[in-house]
Amino acid sequence: MSFFISCRIVLYSSIILAMAWGSASAQAPASSNANPPDTVAELVAANHVLAKLKLVDAFGHITMRDPTNPQRFFMARGVPPVDVTEKDILVLDLDSNVIDKKAGSAPLEKFIHGEIYKARPDVNSIVHSHSPTVIPFSVSKTPLRPIAHTGAFLLPAVPVYEQRTTAGGASNMMISDQKLGKALADTLGQNTVALLRGHGSVVVAPKVGLAVYRTYFTEVSAQLLLQARQLDGPLTYIYPDEAALANDLRNTGYTRQWDLWKKEMGN
Amino acid sequence: MSFFISCRIVLYSSIILAMAWGSASAQAPASSNANPPDTVAELVAANHVLAKLKLVDAFGHITMRDPTNPQRFFMARGVPPVDVTEKDILVLDLDSNVIDKKAGSAPLEKFIHGEIYKARPDVNSIVHSHSPTVIPFSVSKTPLRPIAHTGAFLLPAVPVYEQRTTAGGASNMMISDQKLGKALADTLGQNTVALLRGHGSVVVAPKVGLAVYRTYFTEVSAQLLLQARQLDGPLTYIYPDEAALANDLRNTGYTRQWDLWKKEMGN
Amino acid sequence: MSFFISCRIVLYSSIILAMAWGSASAQAPASSNANPPDTVAELVAANHVLAKLKLVDAFGHITMRDPTNPQRFFMARGVPPVDVTEKDILVLDLDSNVIDKKAGSAPLEKFIHGEIYKARPDVNSIVHSHSPTVIPFSVSKTPLRPIAHTGAFLLPAVPVYEQRTTAGGASNMMISDQKLGKALADTLGQNTVALLRGHGSVVVAPKVGLAVYRTYFTEVSAQLLLQARQLDGPLTYIYPDEAALANDLRNTGYTRQWDLWKKEMGN
Amino acid sequence: MSFFISCRIVLYSSIILAMAWGSASAQAPASSNANPPDTVAELVAANHVLAKLKLVDAFGHITMRDPTNPQRFFMARGVPPVDVTEKDILVLDLDSNVIDKKAGSAPLEKFIHGEIYKARPDVNSIVHSHSPTVIPFSVSKTPLRPIAHTGAFLLPAVPVYEQRTTAGGASNMMISDQKLGKALADTLGQNTVALLRGHGSVVVAPKVGLAVYRTYFTEVSAQLLLQARQLDGPLTYIYPDEAALANDLRNTGYTRQWDLWKKEMGN
Repeated sequence: MSFFISCRIVLYSSIILAMAWGSASAQAPASSNANPPDTVAELVAANHVLAKLKLVDAFGHITMRDPTNPQRFFMARGVPPVDVTEKDILVLDLDSNVIDKKAGSAPLEKFIHGEIYKARPDVNSIVHSHSPTVIPFSVSKTPLRPIAHTGAFLLPAVPVYEQRTTAGGASNMMISDQKLGKALADTLGQNTVALLRGHGSVVVAPKVGLAVYRTYFTEVSAQLLLQARQLDGPLTYIYPDEAALANDLRNTGYTRQWDLWKKEMGN
Repeated sequence: MSFFISCRIVLYSSIILAMAWGSASAQAPASSNANPPDTVAELVAANHVLAKLKLVDAFGHITMRDPTNPQRFFMARGVPPVDVTEKDILVLDLDSNVIDKKAGSAPLEKFIHGEIYKARPDVNSIVHSHSPTVIPFSVSKTPLRPIAHTGAFLLPAVPVYEQRTTAGGASNMMISDQKLGKALADTLGQNTVALLRGHGSVVVAPKVGLAVYRTYFTEVSAQLLLQARQLDGPLTYIYPDEAALANDLRNTGYTRQWDLWKKEMGN
Repeated sequence: MSFFISCRIVLYSSIILAMAWGSASAQAPASSNANPPDTVAELVAANHVLAKLKLVDAFGHITMRDPTNPQRFFMARGVPPVDVTEKDILVLDLDSNVIDKKAGSAPLEKFIHGEIYKARPDVNSIVHSHSPTVIPFSVSKTPLRPIAHTGAFLLPAVPVYEQRTTAGGASNMMISDQKLGKALADTLGQNTVALLRGHGSVVVAPKVGLAVYRTYFTEVSAQLLLQARQLDGPLTYIYPDEAALANDLRNTGYTRQWDLWKKEMGN
Repeated sequence: MSFFISCRIVLYSSIILAMAWGSASAQAPASSNANPPDTVAELVAANHVLAKLKLVDAFGHITMRDPTNPQRFFMARGVPPVDVTEKDILVLDLDSNVIDKKAGSAPLEKFIHGEIYKARPDVNSIVHSHSPTVIPFSVSKTPLRPIAHTGAFLLPAVPVYEQRTTAGGASNMMISDQKLGKALADTLGQNTVALLRGHGSVVVAPKVGLAVYRTYFTEVSAQLLLQARQLDGPLTYIYPDEAALANDLRNTGYTRQWDLWKKEMGN
């Protein structure tokens, strides 16, 4: 949840970004998953897809690491994801400072993104959402574990972040500074998804489309496990060894679903 | 639930209201939350949003206190919320009498609104609905408590109103006179939401948009708690201290969601 | 569930029915609930509303007693309810024989309707559907009882019909002859709703619109009770004395919802 | 789940298939259920209906046996079902080899289909999907048994396929070769539906439309049983003797639902 408070709206326009916008496909970095690298158009589409899939409402955000400069990332200013256009995209450094102050203010919880990008060089895209069915898992003693191959990326674990511990007591529950962002990144560790107690989740991926895909299947995995628990156990969860093999397929194969979503949403 | 029985339909048109209609923004009262004060256009939009979010069907109502006269409130005559226009809006005093008798009849349960406005000067808008998932909580021994920050306004408590106690036995379950309305207002006390056993809820706020927002997240909070109870406890509920801080943010930040809903509904 | 097997499709057109079609409003019978009496246009609209509310799919049916001749009733031939037009409406006697053989064949389960109209002179409309959430109640030991005022009509009881008892063993589960129809009518007794074990429900009313309304709130009542059972009991059900009073209001007030549905469905 | 990896997209066009396309209705085989036999247009429609009913997303597939050559079957290349056109349809032999190599590549899990067609001469259409509510049953000790007549085809049993047993350990969970396909066919036996642990289901039928219909009611049956288990038991399941009779009706009567779906989807 982030609140955009600035009254002055300076729409983004930057020469620095022009390469990423128009010619990023010529800049493929080494990572096999980033070839071709994501473009800002992809990030805009991701905002729309997340909204249409009801994974975000007026709040929640997705960011991507700048493919031309890994010390920077792109994030929309605080407008509803369904309304985001390229003009809303800001550039931030990994301390979550907006580079061009005149371009506008970033959402309050920008620190989620900056701190995870610092800690995880393998991550090029991050989603923070309040996707509904993950929240019950964040307040219970039941770990979110996958029962279906579509949730294989949830292994080895989905840790739960408790801000009261970090903040030494009550907070407004927002990740509103670097210290809190770093604590969340520490909780996430080398996993793909972390839950924020009473709040939502963060989901990371090497690509924008895969971050959306995993956010969707985090929600689906929570729904499936909730249902399975009403049947007779013990339940069979996805085994770590098969999860690794399933992920190999999915980490490239997700594009068929991602492309379909973009088409359905008119992107 | 209210039934509009009058056969004569006299559409509202009043000099008294003209100020609120057209120039209410010049009449800002002291309350920080009522600046600028709500307009009747906002109340009409709220009727439509509640219907499109399926929080009301052909029944249920939202009212607002007249920003130019706190002893009066605005309420649509008994038409389905989705069909309400400015011409359907009546003016009532706090005894729930329609000021202009020729303008039409108010819904049977108008007393919910008059009596709560009397008891709660901080309240400027009230929703009564049969939003589905709150009803099971109204008939069980499980209190409706928030597990997510979006339901922080449900603290300190969501009391349940039992009309059999007030009425000394059976009633048709409608809040159909001042005595019943006052009993409901007493049950609500200084809380934000009360459940009506076997019937629905009332939700109050200082602003129309916030009343809609809270009605939506009352329903969502009920859904989340119902799911969480199927997982292993003990559950972690939102702590009172963090709820207070979360509410501070949300009591202004809700406008991004409210504006998005209005836009999506064509208002 | 009924299957329309006849290959010859003779569309209905009958002088006998002309009065009911065009001038039924001049024929108001004594029943207060049938004034003005239903028209065939109302029956066609009811087919569409039931389909759009997903209470029926390609199967399920609603009938109405002929307001000009209580020994006859109107029923669409076996087409999906969403497709029914006035030309599809057949006239049957209370032994469930189609009056005009050339007009087409009636659905297999026409006997549900004929036998209930025989046994219940107060009933002018009947719905048979497979509305999903009532089915679990039909196979369990949990009675379907209302927890919300919108389900007050479910009192005094919702009996469950078991065809194996009547048929003396296995059947195809369809109410495919007069004997089975009479057994179902006997199970229904003076109640408003009966469940058919492993199959669906029948819902009766004095008016077409009220039959649709009650079918919808039978489904809603089942959903609410299913949720309530996951909370801490004991649950408070609607009391018989307040149900009677609530029904008094609703038996006329339902028209606001019914009119809204018809409008939303373009009828 | 299948991934289409080939980069070269050769659209299908074959003289061999022309008869099935245009004049299959003149080729009725002996099976009463295949008269008239399915056409490729029916298979394309089935892809669209499955997608619109949300039984498949970008993945999942339906095939049909070639009515003119029972040693061959038709399967779309790896595009999202909602996008399938006649040009995407490939012809495969029962070892799951694509006949015309230039026509494109078949989905990875084509072996599901080839091996079941080999083992089950009565089967002319097969659906593989990840329809959500069947997955919890695939990982629990609760058998998927029908409580409603619409699920009668689930008897005598819905076996669960465990690939770890067949593969002797971890796999990527895909049915990616003949050995795995045969093991799944063995698990299915003479039943109509088998679940794949942690993955999805296969559903078979003598006709394309009936395969879709059964896939839909497999999902519905899982939803109904999940709900029924939250009520007081013991539950009454559909009896084998009545299931047989109910199936007799439904194996022809399903066409009303199938035709409605096709019409609703614009096919």
